[in-house]
Amino acid sequence: MNRKNIAEHAAFSADKMQKVNLFETPKFFCDLYCLQPGQDQKIHSHADNDKLYLVQKGRAKVTVGDTDHDVGEGEIVFAPAGEPHGVINESSADLVCVVFMAPHPSFKG
Amino acid sequence: MNRKNIAEHAAFSADKMQKVNLFETPKFFCDLYCLQPGQDQKIHSHADNDKLYLVQKGRAKVTVGDTDHDVGEGEIVFAPAGEPHGVINESSADLVCVVFMAPHPSFKG
Repeated sequence: MNRKNIAEHAAFSADKMQKVNLFETPKFFCDLYCLQPGQDQKIHSHADNDKLYLVQKGRAKVTVGDTDHDVGEGEIVFAPAGEPHGVINESSADLVCVVFMAPHPSFKG
Repeated sequence: MNRKNIAEHAAFSADKMQKVNLFETPKFFCDLYCLQPGQDQKIHSHADNDKLYLVQKGRAKVTVGDTDHDVGEGEIVFAPAGEPHGVINESSADLVCVVFMAPHPSFKG
């Protein structure tokens, strides 16, 4: 399946942020991060992997290094390898981010 | 600049499809491909680079291998390394695709 619809793959849980993989190879992954209001991915970093967050639906606070970015639909944030980063949904609506990472940090095939 | 707005960076030319780089490192690039009606990127391939097309605005025909995908807003198409691929705007409206490639085929820093 080479073509996927983002809205059809988005999935939420009251427990925590959901990650839904769309595509992956050893070179990259493309996931959906689906966050209900108040959910987050804690600040973390990857020594060797670059990451992008594209807000597809809703509004995100994306932290990269010392900066908090208020990110709306159609905006992209870059978290370079080695830089601490994370995302939280501080809004009152669901949030869907398309997340792209290169290379894949743990591809198992 | 770690945060960019896709709509603010989209740029078109009557001459040909425009590529606008948003972010790049040796690990990946993220470009906007901006196509007016009738414009295209010819079928080509990259032996070692995976590519994604995310339609941000408009409608695209994205070819991967032997398959033509009719791709609307909020849909993503994957063109694996080695697979011939291309995109054409056969609609009557402007088209903006977010394109991710990993690794970067020609990073010069």
